[in-house]
Amino acid sequence: MELTTGEVWTLVSTALVLIMTPGLALFYGGLVRVRSVVNMMLFSVSAMGVVGVLWILFGYSMNFFAAGETGFAGSPFKDFGLLATDPAKFISVGFGAVFAMISTALISGAIADRVGLGSWVLFAGVWASLVYFPVSAWVWGGGWIQHLGATLGTPDVIDLAGGTVIHINAGAAALALALVAGKRLGFGPGSHKPHSVPLVTIGAALLWFGWIGFNSGLATEGPEAGLIVVNTLGAPAAGIVGWILVDTIRGKKPGVIGAASGAVAGLVAITPSAANLAPLWALLLGLIAGVACAFAIDWKYRLGYDDSLDVVGLHLVAGVIGSLYLGFFAFHDGLFTGGNGGLLLVQTISVLSVVVYSFVASLLIALGVKRITGLRVPPTVEEEGIDAAAHGEEAYAYETAVPEMSSAR
Amino acid sequence: MELTTGEVWTLVSTALVLIMTPGLALFYGGLVRVRSVVNMMLFSVSAMGVVGVLWILFGYSMNFFAAGETGFAGSPFKDFGLLATDPAKFISVGFGAVFAMISTALISGAIADRVGLGSWVLFAGVWASLVYFPVSAWVWGGGWIQHLGATLGTPDVIDLAGGTVIHINAGAAALALALVAGKRLGFGPGSHKPHSVPLVTIGAALLWFGWIGFNSGLATEGPEAGLIVVNTLGAPAAGIVGWILVDTIRGKKPGVIGAASGAVAGLVAITPSAANLAPLWALLLGLIAGVACAFAIDWKYRLGYDDSLDVVGLHLVAGVIGSLYLGFFAFHDGLFTGGNGGLLLVQTISVLSVVVYSFVASLLIALGVKRITGLRVPPTVEEEGIDAAAHGEEAYAYETAVPEMSSAR
Amino acid sequence: MELTTGEVWTLVSTALVLIMTPGLALFYGGLVRVRSVVNMMLFSVSAMGVVGVLWILFGYSMNFFAAGETGFAGSPFKDFGLLATDPAKFISVGFGAVFAMISTALISGAIADRVGLGSWVLFAGVWASLVYFPVSAWVWGGGWIQHLGATLGTPDVIDLAGGTVIHINAGAAALALALVAGKRLGFGPGSHKPHSVPLVTIGAALLWFGWIGFNSGLATEGPEAGLIVVNTLGAPAAGIVGWILVDTIRGKKPGVIGAASGAVAGLVAITPSAANLAPLWALLLGLIAGVACAFAIDWKYRLGYDDSLDVVGLHLVAGVIGSLYLGFFAFHDGLFTGGNGGLLLVQTISVLSVVVYSFVASLLIALGVKRITGLRVPPTVEEEGIDAAAHGEEAYAYETAVPEMSSAR
Repeated sequence: MELTTGEVWTLVSTALVLIMTPGLALFYGGLVRVRSVVNMMLFSVSAMGVVGVLWILFGYSMNFFAAGETGFAGSPFKDFGLLATDPAKFISVGFGAVFAMISTALISGAIADRVGLGSWVLFAGVWASLVYFPVSAWVWGGGWIQHLGATLGTPDVIDLAGGTVIHINAGAAALALALVAGKRLGFGPGSHKPHSVPLVTIGAALLWFGWIGFNSGLATEGPEAGLIVVNTLGAPAAGIVGWILVDTIRGKKPGVIGAASGAVAGLVAITPSAANLAPLWALLLGLIAGVACAFAIDWKYRLGYDDSLDVVGLHLVAGVIGSLYLGFFAFHDGLFTGGNGGLLLVQTISVLSVVVYSFVASLLIALGVKRITGLRVPPTVEEEGIDAAAHGEEAYAYETAVPEMSSAR
Repeated sequence: MELTTGEVWTLVSTALVLIMTPGLALFYGGLVRVRSVVNMMLFSVSAMGVVGVLWILFGYSMNFFAAGETGFAGSPFKDFGLLATDPAKFISVGFGAVFAMISTALISGAIADRVGLGSWVLFAGVWASLVYFPVSAWVWGGGWIQHLGATLGTPDVIDLAGGTVIHINAGAAALALALVAGKRLGFGPGSHKPHSVPLVTIGAALLWFGWIGFNSGLATEGPEAGLIVVNTLGAPAAGIVGWILVDTIRGKKPGVIGAASGAVAGLVAITPSAANLAPLWALLLGLIAGVACAFAIDWKYRLGYDDSLDVVGLHLVAGVIGSLYLGFFAFHDGLFTGGNGGLLLVQTISVLSVVVYSFVASLLIALGVKRITGLRVPPTVEEEGIDAAAHGEEAYAYETAVPEMSSAR
Repeated sequence: MELTTGEVWTLVSTALVLIMTPGLALFYGGLVRVRSVVNMMLFSVSAMGVVGVLWILFGYSMNFFAAGETGFAGSPFKDFGLLATDPAKFISVGFGAVFAMISTALISGAIADRVGLGSWVLFAGVWASLVYFPVSAWVWGGGWIQHLGATLGTPDVIDLAGGTVIHINAGAAALALALVAGKRLGFGPGSHKPHSVPLVTIGAALLWFGWIGFNSGLATEGPEAGLIVVNTLGAPAAGIVGWILVDTIRGKKPGVIGAASGAVAGLVAITPSAANLAPLWALLLGLIAGVACAFAIDWKYRLGYDDSLDVVGLHLVAGVIGSLYLGFFAFHDGLFTGGNGGLLLVQTISVLSVVVYSFVASLLIALGVKRITGLRVPPTVEEEGIDAAAHGEEAYAYETAVPEMSSAR
């Protein structure tokens, strides 16, 4: 069984998606203050550990319904430890593993500066098991959302690479977790400035890079793979332009963090839709997402939830935009392209279902974790800086890195 | 239409080349002073946005001459917004997009510390439209340089991956832009020290990594792809050795920035030539490029143009070396390998043509931008630091990152 | 000869492995103090230069025995400069080049802060020529270790991607070099703290990313490639969990450096074995490696050798664990899986042979270099900081990066 071209592309894409989670660690790590970098990066790194192990133990098994199997999710026991896996499936097992890692890690952006590693690991492991694996089974593994079109007599729900499964799912969970964790000390507009723009840039670069594989890794036909890649270039490019325009028009000087956020917004929006839009409409979608998210990240100050690094404002908002946009502009089946609201209906149902399920389930899990561990570190730890107090490791030890200053000592 | 192996390799290479532009942002970002990092990185990031959008709107269309079409460039209207694209072409559309991004971004190394975002974006958009898209059409899209061999009865011009289209083109434009922008305050040997060697290393690493796909992404045959990759490893390796040797012999202590620059010099030189040299001659070319560029980066101080990060000294110089070296050593057709000067002639013509066209056109565009925006920020902004003054965002906010020092406050 | 799917995957893997060496430069660079970053990163970068050149000159030629050829290694002259290479081999030539680079660079972690570039380059060039190229020929190029199973009537030695050739080989060399170089001034538990956790994270991310290609780059069948990738995800995930558990149980607060080291330990252990273990046993191996290495890195303080960045504690220890684990758990042939000790025997012989040969040869080479260059820089250079004193280049020049502090001047 020589490798097929599609299998090679999935293998490549597995490597590409793998580096997105450390990329996220760096993106998030750069966005927090210098005293919380280790804590924030460790959330992503530990998610790679815990979710990677759980995926092999029972996640892959839960992730799809075997023939005839129904219910909440696939049985965790039918392929425990991947001991019963058909070897021809290993390539897709690996591709699924890296998706589970990044989806879980995304949530951690909501809880900067104030949650210990134990609480996070507990939340992450339970969330992956009770939210991510089931929702993935519903949308991609033969579950009810995948069959929704057939059930209602409409076109099938479109979610190419995880508008609902990944971004809306993680975004709704982030909102729940941020609400349970509460606000950071001193939270407010302009508080908690990012400590390293270059680190944010490195992280965003790895995210965009990996996203090529994220969106197109299962495409086996040349024209489809090509279209997905073009759209995964065009939408974030337009997102950059959109965000910079908003900043300029609002009199905020444009910077790299905004531009990088615009790229991420475009990427999130194109995730469900990259295979079903002509490039020009992908540009428009990226522009809309960049503009919308540039405004959406301010909601947290008005509504008073401390979604520290804007998981809601980027992933939930752009995920919803991208998923619903398909209802209007998808090839053949959109309201404007096909003259029929069926697709818009099922897209809306799938979006709402995942928002509600993920938010409620995550809220319950977060409350459970709070009961067990307290969830939040003591205020003294937060004040001192969680890296030094809880991890015994600080991001930087520069000694004489600033030689001009040593004379001041 | 299942993916072919060549298409998979082009898809992979698109991801590889995509990460080169953020890689360049980090490489350039590390080379500037800490007060200009955001500005410098934003040049590359905004180029990804603007050129990515333009490519989809009309760049791809201009980039090649359709059957029967002639003139300055392909018509921007024949495939506007990629709405008329043959789906089988999308993979090459994506590959072309990332080339356009990095080529434009390369130029920004010439204008560190002193040009605002608006001026750069205007220059970048016009340059891509009037210089990059046409020159690419001349060399690769069925234009006059591609037909030069047939016209003169010599071998065809060889430019595998952009010795002329990318490096000489961007290098000549950088020289023009640097001249119009003028020198930075206090410009001179040893002024404006790089602020972060690790950032330079990260950037150079991503560049070399991406260059594998840059040079070989369109190869569809095993032996050719293999040869290109071997040469894309050998030439920069020899470039590192060459640069370190020059530094050692001149009594300058060897460092990472020199070694990374040597690798880039080798990579630029092998870009046009990787498919047409035996590995031993690729080593020699890399060595020559490393040695030559180690000297060439000093010209700017003697001649008095402030090409801040050596776009001329690396990309123009090594691009010319690599393109002309083919005239002597290319398989079969070089002066030494084929005993005939025909290839050397057409290589020389193509090099000179691109240098002259790019320099003159870029000069005019830069003068036009200067007329509209002033091009350069006021001296007070440059003195205060362009990041704080023009972007409201500084690269680092370290607070108590240097705890020993806080006692001095 | 159109590219085969296997060739495309090897090309991709070449790019992936290429970025491991700069990844190592950043991993190691982050682990040293701020005054030695340039020196440490330059070790990896210069290894890319020197070993890349030597590989093309004669390394590839030495790396395998041609038909009928026997002895210590292949003849360096049979394909000098790759002038006689069958073009169909170029893809594997490139893949071999990047393996040689990273293997040599790994050793440099043993000699932080105290060895000059000239000494290192001399050691690296000789070591690659007299240790790496021959050992690779023994295990993979048709030499005695590859034939050991046939010789003894047991199963063949299993070393998928370099448990012996790379990790044990480099680890034993690192021990020898550390012993000859001697301890750093002030060496002891807690001395010489890492200067940048984000840099360590970036490096580890690139290493894991590249390791996907490292382990599976020569697989041509779907099921095997898939299994290798799943195990290259599972083992490091379990290594992260193992290391964090050890730190937690021992009352050491968990941090990113530990987690990243756990991932590396799992990756090293799975390197020889990824194609021959079911995923559940790969998890167990990763867990064991993470736990064992978390303890092993303390040996250097007890035994008194300054293996500065734990090349022994990670690569030698986990390499031995992964190679011997196969003797117990490999499909069909392990002691527990096949009921026969034959594989365990040949694995043990190959491990011991490489340890002894590499240690002794590296000791002699190090002593030779010491004779010629002194190996170690003068104590004054070490005290002042080797970057400033020996390279004239410091990792960071932050000027006013810490604006709150400038008022103290």
